[in-house]
Amino acid sequence: MTKERLFLFDTTLRDGAQTSGVDFSVNEKVVVAELLERLGVDYIEGGYPGANPTDSEFFSEKRTRKATFTAFGMTKRAGRSAANDPGLQDVLSASSDACCFVAKAWDYHVRVALGCTNEENLDSIYETVTAAVAAGKEAMIDCEHFFDGFKANPEYALNCARTAYHAGARWIVLCDTNGGTLPDEIFDIVTKVQEVVPGTHLGIHTHDDTGHAVANSLAAVDAGVRQIQGTLNGLGERCGNANLITLIPTLKLKPAFSDRFEIGVSDAQLKEITSISHAFDEILNRSPDRQAPYVGETAFATKAGIHASAILKDPQTYEHVAPESVGNQRRVLVSDQAGKSNLLGELARVGIEVDKSDPRLDLLLAKVKEREAEGYAYEAADASFELLARRELGEVPRYFAVESFRVMVERRFNAIGDLVTVSEAVVKVDIDGETRMSVAEGNGPVNALDMALRKDLGKYQSAIDGLELIDYKVRILNGGTGAVTRVLIESQDTVTHRRWFTIGVSSNIVDASFQALVDSITFALMKANVA
Amino acid sequence: MTKERLFLFDTTLRDGAQTSGVDFSVNEKVVVAELLERLGVDYIEGGYPGANPTDSEFFSEKRTRKATFTAFGMTKRAGRSAANDPGLQDVLSASSDACCFVAKAWDYHVRVALGCTNEENLDSIYETVTAAVAAGKEAMIDCEHFFDGFKANPEYALNCARTAYHAGARWIVLCDTNGGTLPDEIFDIVTKVQEVVPGTHLGIHTHDDTGHAVANSLAAVDAGVRQIQGTLNGLGERCGNANLITLIPTLKLKPAFSDRFEIGVSDAQLKEITSISHAFDEILNRSPDRQAPYVGETAFATKAGIHASAILKDPQTYEHVAPESVGNQRRVLVSDQAGKSNLLGELARVGIEVDKSDPRLDLLLAKVKEREAEGYAYEAADASFELLARRELGEVPRYFAVESFRVMVERRFNAIGDLVTVSEAVVKVDIDGETRMSVAEGNGPVNALDMALRKDLGKYQSAIDGLELIDYKVRILNGGTGAVTRVLIESQDTVTHRRWFTIGVSSNIVDASFQALVDSITFALMKANVA
Repeated sequence: MTKERLFLFDTTLRDGAQTSGVDFSVNEKVVVAELLERLGVDYIEGGYPGANPTDSEFFSEKRTRKATFTAFGMTKRAGRSAANDPGLQDVLSASSDACCFVAKAWDYHVRVALGCTNEENLDSIYETVTAAVAAGKEAMIDCEHFFDGFKANPEYALNCARTAYHAGARWIVLCDTNGGTLPDEIFDIVTKVQEVVPGTHLGIHTHDDTGHAVANSLAAVDAGVRQIQGTLNGLGERCGNANLITLIPTLKLKPAFSDRFEIGVSDAQLKEITSISHAFDEILNRSPDRQAPYVGETAFATKAGIHASAILKDPQTYEHVAPESVGNQRRVLVSDQAGKSNLLGELARVGIEVDKSDPRLDLLLAKVKEREAEGYAYEAADASFELLARRELGEVPRYFAVESFRVMVERRFNAIGDLVTVSEAVVKVDIDGETRMSVAEGNGPVNALDMALRKDLGKYQSAIDGLELIDYKVRILNGGTGAVTRVLIESQDTVTHRRWFTIGVSSNIVDASFQALVDSITFALMKANVA
Repeated sequence: MTKERLFLFDTTLRDGAQTSGVDFSVNEKVVVAELLERLGVDYIEGGYPGANPTDSEFFSEKRTRKATFTAFGMTKRAGRSAANDPGLQDVLSASSDACCFVAKAWDYHVRVALGCTNEENLDSIYETVTAAVAAGKEAMIDCEHFFDGFKANPEYALNCARTAYHAGARWIVLCDTNGGTLPDEIFDIVTKVQEVVPGTHLGIHTHDDTGHAVANSLAAVDAGVRQIQGTLNGLGERCGNANLITLIPTLKLKPAFSDRFEIGVSDAQLKEITSISHAFDEILNRSPDRQAPYVGETAFATKAGIHASAILKDPQTYEHVAPESVGNQRRVLVSDQAGKSNLLGELARVGIEVDKSDPRLDLLLAKVKEREAEGYAYEAADASFELLARRELGEVPRYFAVESFRVMVERRFNAIGDLVTVSEAVVKVDIDGETRMSVAEGNGPVNALDMALRKDLGKYQSAIDGLELIDYKVRILNGGTGAVTRVLIESQDTVTHRRWFTIGVSSNIVDASFQALVDSITFALMKANVA
């Protein structure tokens, strides 16, 4: 029996960006889009071009290779033509493959929020879809408040969906905007919508206000929809959107779905989902949810107790899916074999081929475990991981050695009476037995240290000319006085456009930053193949 | 129409205690039991008397006033009588009203884990229930692995349930022990179980391994069970148990359930649920989940955007339930587009009443916008927002002024040849015209600065004794050289348990941290009402 195709639509960069405290930069959006492509979603909704400078810049070029790059917008305003609506034109002229327009589907909101007639709203939907199709875009309509609207006025809600479909929308997405609808209602209403739009053109967009975002999405699939909208780690306004990181393993591993449907995520991509989920938390500078389904640190952990001995006899009868299938691990006893095969996978990912019987692998595994116990998180710092691995395998030259550094930050009144803060760093470096001392000022201590460190690397100087520090993140790993600081630095070579992440961990933020800076420069030198 | 009674069974102190990292003391169990009585659950399962000293002591007296105090245990071992099983006798002799015994319901586990015959296991169930009833206890059987067992051998699983029922068990609880079952399967299997046990004697116990613990519980209720087992905030092994804090508002507020069922939680108790949920996190020393359904800090928060103005017109059409009904609050986040009415709402929330025609409001609004343009994010820093507002309204004393500070971080080889990093800060503070100079070392520059700043605040010293920095977050707002650093600090008063967030923004991380530290201390002094 051929399986039906189910499409995954990610809105992390649009609806997820509505989360309180989340504010993506263009650069972060680029990094998240890369994560999403690694995961294998079908659509990446990147934002709302024209609504703010970040989104406009993000849509100044196409940012996906495989996924359909989707711009969000609103249907045209009533009382003017599509061609005369500048907001709509901004969306249509963005570098996207598809456009997803939000439209009111609840007559109450049409009246109160839009202040137009029901017919004008239907006209806006029709004209907007037509304009998008004419502009060569795949067109979608997000029917806002669809379920509440359906309960209030089913004919009008259905009319909105039908109008979008007849105008040529590829997808009509039914949104539970307030997040209060329960699975049975979702199932019943989706069933009725299929009298006017076939399920192969319907999508579902849910929120977690009653803890049912995932269950509601699957109830809609059961009822017939074939597109699911969600976000990484359930990011989103209020209680969040449907969590794709939870949905994807269920769709891939539970026969109730995997027997009927196929999705664009391969088995190999599924094995990366734990690492992708954690990498996304690093971008948000959040601690991963340890109890998250499938990908949480304790998702396959059993505390010593009535299950502990039995689970070792036959793990399959105690685990609903195999932890390896989602790239996670059983935590009763982490077997070294399981650890080793994970490690081989990570090495292959950064381009290092080692024979699995190589005895150096055991040493590297021990080192990684030791470092991770100290607070390093290599899944978010590929370059530091690659350096550690290549060093353990004996391949990285010692380009330079830092003998000492000193950083000073002083706030005082200057000669003309202004309060100023001055940061200065001094670094002493040894290259081929020759000591070089550099001093620099910076915006802050880390910047000063970075400037001083890169000021004079002698024969290596030309190889790091294009090096640029583009992001810097700090996280305190365990609150209180014994806190450990983890620093993640993202660097870029402005010539090759290569980007890489390095990590440092220490009780001292300057020390942690220094480690990550040194790793970043060393990585650049290694990739430049300098002698 | 009379409503059917649905019973809530809390297992926070038993299954919740299986959570990795959680280890309740007797005193904590007493405090949690009081919280649970405040909430209004029907059963409180307190632990496993005889299994460890904590649980034995907890069951040395009855710990509930209204709820049925329940002891957990295992069915008697095969090959001996109930009277000769010391483990069972420990449970029966505990000071409890009810006993809940776990029994294997999957023939595979009977053979592999118990090593007895299917008939011996049925006999254990029967004898154990009989013994409990004879001891004057309300008897319950938790059918472990019921759903997986049913799929493997339905007759045997049903036989276990039937045997417990015929022996006189008040409740037969169907457990999805591995947490991998989906709602439709739960519904179907529960429906079939009712051929042997009436729904009024069936309970449901779920885990969140696929994100369906809540949906599965409700599917079981739809199918006929009348007892739900769960925990506060979804505590529990692996991904946690069904979250009663999510389930209770749905049962009380959603007509699909509230029209049919009544539970022991009154409307007044429901209004306490947000506060109970947060109090429980305090006991666990965890930060509350900001996105938790119903009770999360952002559960009713809307970021300024397409919804912000409309939500103020008619909140009910944007909120699935009224935030007040669960003791939570609407939050239209102060942000870029904050208007005066948002600002008034936020001011009221932090306890500041101002007349909306007060001209100082315009000045404050301008100030907030200016600060937010610089990178401040007051939605994440209530204490800094309150200070800014009170300052603009002319109410905050200038307790102390920092004249200058200096921070030094040095990495060098010490006298015995080890590479060490030393951080030292010097702070000069003016209090009532008197200059005080303090120096301190710390783990890093911010810690050293914090130590020096709090070392000698003269007459204010006693007011900040309990002040503790519990989290520190750093974010770089726009990558590259012109980067601005935003620091968020979470502080706590270890005496009052009050927590607050402060913010600092600067191109210099030390400067930004310094601002947040000074705000935190000033906020503590203001709340301590020092002169």
